[in-house]
Amino acid sequence: MPKIKKASGSLTIMTEMVMPNDTNTLGYLMGGNLMRMMDIVGAISAQKHSNRIVVTASVDNVSFVESIPLGNVVSLEAKVTRAFNSSMEVVVNVFSENIPAGEKSNTNKAYLTFVAVDKSRRPVEVPELIPETDEEKEYYAGALRRRQLRLVLAGRMQPSEASELKALFGI
Amino acid sequence: MPKIKKASGSLTIMTEMVMPNDTNTLGYLMGGNLMRMMDIVGAISAQKHSNRIVVTASVDNVSFVESIPLGNVVSLEAKVTRAFNSSMEVVVNVFSENIPAGEKSNTNKAYLTFVAVDKSRRPVEVPELIPETDEEKEYYAGALRRRQLRLVLAGRMQPSEASELKALFGI
Amino acid sequence: MPKIKKASGSLTIMTEMVMPNDTNTLGYLMGGNLMRMMDIVGAISAQKHSNRIVVTASVDNVSFVESIPLGNVVSLEAKVTRAFNSSMEVVVNVFSENIPAGEKSNTNKAYLTFVAVDKSRRPVEVPELIPETDEEKEYYAGALRRRQLRLVLAGRMQPSEASELKALFGI
Amino acid sequence: MPKIKKASGSLTIMTEMVMPNDTNTLGYLMGGNLMRMMDIVGAISAQKHSNRIVVTASVDNVSFVESIPLGNVVSLEAKVTRAFNSSMEVVVNVFSENIPAGEKSNTNKAYLTFVAVDKSRRPVEVPELIPETDEEKEYYAGALRRRQLRLVLAGRMQPSEASELKALFGI
Amino acid sequence: MPKIKKASGSLTIMTEMVMPNDTNTLGYLMGGNLMRMMDIVGAISAQKHSNRIVVTASVDNVSFVESIPLGNVVSLEAKVTRAFNSSMEVVVNVFSENIPAGEKSNTNKAYLTFVAVDKSRRPVEVPELIPETDEEKEYYAGALRRRQLRLVLAGRMQPSEASELKALFGI
Amino acid sequence: MPKIKKASGSLTIMTEMVMPNDTNTLGYLMGGNLMRMMDIVGAISAQKHSNRIVVTASVDNVSFVESIPLGNVVSLEAKVTRAFNSSMEVVVNVFSENIPAGEKSNTNKAYLTFVAVDKSRRPVEVPELIPETDEEKEYYAGALRRRQLRLVLAGRMQPSEASELKALFGI
Repeated sequence: MPKIKKASGSLTIMTEMVMPNDTNTLGYLMGGNLMRMMDIVGAISAQKHSNRIVVTASVDNVSFVESIPLGNVVSLEAKVTRAFNSSMEVVVNVFSENIPAGEKSNTNKAYLTFVAVDKSRRPVEVPELIPETDEEKEYYAGALRRRQLRLVLAGRMQPSEASELKALFGI
Repeated sequence: MPKIKKASGSLTIMTEMVMPNDTNTLGYLMGGNLMRMMDIVGAISAQKHSNRIVVTASVDNVSFVESIPLGNVVSLEAKVTRAFNSSMEVVVNVFSENIPAGEKSNTNKAYLTFVAVDKSRRPVEVPELIPETDEEKEYYAGALRRRQLRLVLAGRMQPSEASELKALFGI
Repeated sequence: MPKIKKASGSLTIMTEMVMPNDTNTLGYLMGGNLMRMMDIVGAISAQKHSNRIVVTASVDNVSFVESIPLGNVVSLEAKVTRAFNSSMEVVVNVFSENIPAGEKSNTNKAYLTFVAVDKSRRPVEVPELIPETDEEKEYYAGALRRRQLRLVLAGRMQPSEASELKALFGI
Repeated sequence: MPKIKKASGSLTIMTEMVMPNDTNTLGYLMGGNLMRMMDIVGAISAQKHSNRIVVTASVDNVSFVESIPLGNVVSLEAKVTRAFNSSMEVVVNVFSENIPAGEKSNTNKAYLTFVAVDKSRRPVEVPELIPETDEEKEYYAGALRRRQLRLVLAGRMQPSEASELKALFGI
Repeated sequence: MPKIKKASGSLTIMTEMVMPNDTNTLGYLMGGNLMRMMDIVGAISAQKHSNRIVVTASVDNVSFVESIPLGNVVSLEAKVTRAFNSSMEVVVNVFSENIPAGEKSNTNKAYLTFVAVDKSRRPVEVPELIPETDEEKEYYAGALRRRQLRLVLAGRMQPSEASELKALFGI
Repeated sequence: MPKIKKASGSLTIMTEMVMPNDTNTLGYLMGGNLMRMMDIVGAISAQKHSNRIVVTASVDNVSFVESIPLGNVVSLEAKVTRAFNSSMEVVVNVFSENIPAGEKSNTNKAYLTFVAVDKSRRPVEVPELIPETDEEKEYYAGALRRRQLRLVLAGRMQPSEASELKALFGI
């Protein structure tokens, strides 16, 4: 297996129609169902980068600003942003499309982390990731800051050691 | 409707068995399916506090440290921690139980935010929340800090204005 | 494993939202879907008492007097009422709640029987059950009568031997 | 609409394969899933007799003596046994078939009651039912006894008035 | 196992209600869901003829002329039309019924081919099929022509060798 | 709306993991479940070309040569090949990928036809399609022949008039 892989190799696209059972009483896609889709498309993307079985390690803060109504088409685009030993951060962009009305918008963006494992669920190393486009480079750079935030939130890093985060707060 | 309600009134318990279709190829509950359950139990809890239809506004960072195998019983306990005008933060604690083995553990904790809306999906005010137990008071106090983090992450608050967060970083 | 356990230890609460696919063409929860939920919550309760895998042995007469509309919250509370060698009777109370309207009612009560089994599906003994509250004692006492009715209906007991039942008919 | 209809006109057959998600951890069809199928096939049968929308009124005691493993074919045969004003009793026989092994057995028999309703869910009259075969006549005769038992169990008839039931107990 | 079996022995009937999640935004059963039902009922029918596990080999052209609305009852009748070594052609007729309106029509007819396999998925021989009724004989005769069309479409037979098909085009 | 649109504008990609409930007893994706996915991705593709609600009109012969095991990733790529008044032919290519093993293959190809409709389900005109690449041109050219075959099979065209088909048989 190659030791270094391009970000583009992990691109995964999932397209779904919003079905009645996915919606709340107002007829809009429930947040939890969207998160379920994000998890699946993200896992496939991380599988593509690592050629391994992967398990979800974390999902960063997701916000739901725009609602997605019944009958809309939801497309999710996932790509690995950066690899760290056995874990990978994946960004998932969600687009909602009312095709008859010709409307499409980028409703959500989420970062999920997956760990590559063997059949006994022991973590295994994954290839490094090489970003190529400007957008990929930006995701790659930000991955370090988001990782520190995750570690601080999980109580596994002291805020005082989170150098990237401190920069964020202008310290 | 009362203007002030107790935290305990929003307690909601959901118990589920992990079914084959909820699991990945290793036989463990997929993260996305757990998030779907969190969203439903959290929404019911926020409904109980507000007596309103609610929509998911955000889900904070969730980490998946411990895997939940097929056949285990999953129970989720949700309670509103604090109310802000039309939004409510809900904490969801997830327990995984292998009953024949007599094992139970608190596998995940998540904070979700819901907004109370009317039938046209316009935000409506919700009652204030009064914490009573020590645990409820701790959740209530922390809700402010988590809210600032959410606003900063969503680009709706400058890090420099996030007084509660800055304290976290010892500034 | 203890030889005697309290009824309260088997309490299991399941909360669900009525989803579109659970409803009939009039928009009400179908009876069969409610029975499916009863079976799951009852099985978990029986698992808690016995610390064993359990299989459904029977479901007593269930009546559906009140319909539960789409969007309502359904909560099911299950508790073991009495143990007999390897079988346990569980009572499941169903509550339907229209939270925005502030309405809640106890729509159904059902008695299910589960048998504790080992991995080869052979019945295994379960702990005795000790009722504590008045309500638990009432359920405990009635369990014998319901058991006779089950045996008579299954053709495994002569009506003339069903002493508890005969009392019911004032004989 | 005719005022009298034959039992045979309501025959409804449903055939299903047991899928992974229908089974418990031992790989057998869960009782609740079978009851869900019974409810659907029974409702279709009652619709055929009444040419009306129907709602489930009750399900009589169901026992699960024989387990149905993953991959088996389940077939359910439903027929109306007797009509009472706006309600109909339906008998559902369940057959489990391991086709490669050439094994088939009648694993369960259940009686469900449905009420015919109009679009406002008000009960409406249904045609009388005429049994023709010996088996249909036996179901027709027993329906009265089962109905009294249902009413007694629901607390809507005094045991002392349940003449058919008393006969059962040899009084 | 018998070397020759009657067509009638493979008759399989599946009855389903159209549920909300099966429908498109106009409230009609989606074609793909109907094909999923056809595949299951057809597979059970082929299992009955062969007493073997079967896998789908092909589905012939299916057209959807008439739409089936939410709440209708769909019944599918499958029967093996002819056996060829290890494969069987099954015809599936679909009926849509609006029972309250007293309307029923034969909305679709499809031909599916299944192959009988052992546990290692190697093809195994199946009994010959004997048609008895006129309808069965017509299906039996046409099976040869449909098989040639399948082989030509799959690029496994030269059009010039498809004698049955050429007759169709009056050559 | 433009009167002419490019084929590339209708490209739709759907990626799914094969879940336990999608598989048969041997652990392979059931044909009917794959057809359900084809129908959804095809419908979205036809929506993109027509900016209309669409309904499935027909599915051409689909063959299942290669089985797709549990845990594999299935990706479906759909593109409109040609438009005819209110109907569109869509080609769906299915790829099965065992990512840990680094294996990927094009397991199925299917042609589906969709009709664009208004809210009363009356057919409406769709834009013409312009093929650009060599592959798109080949699909475009073949669409006429496949359409004649569909009409002949549906009994709506005499074989003798199917000029394109006759060429196929070397007449």
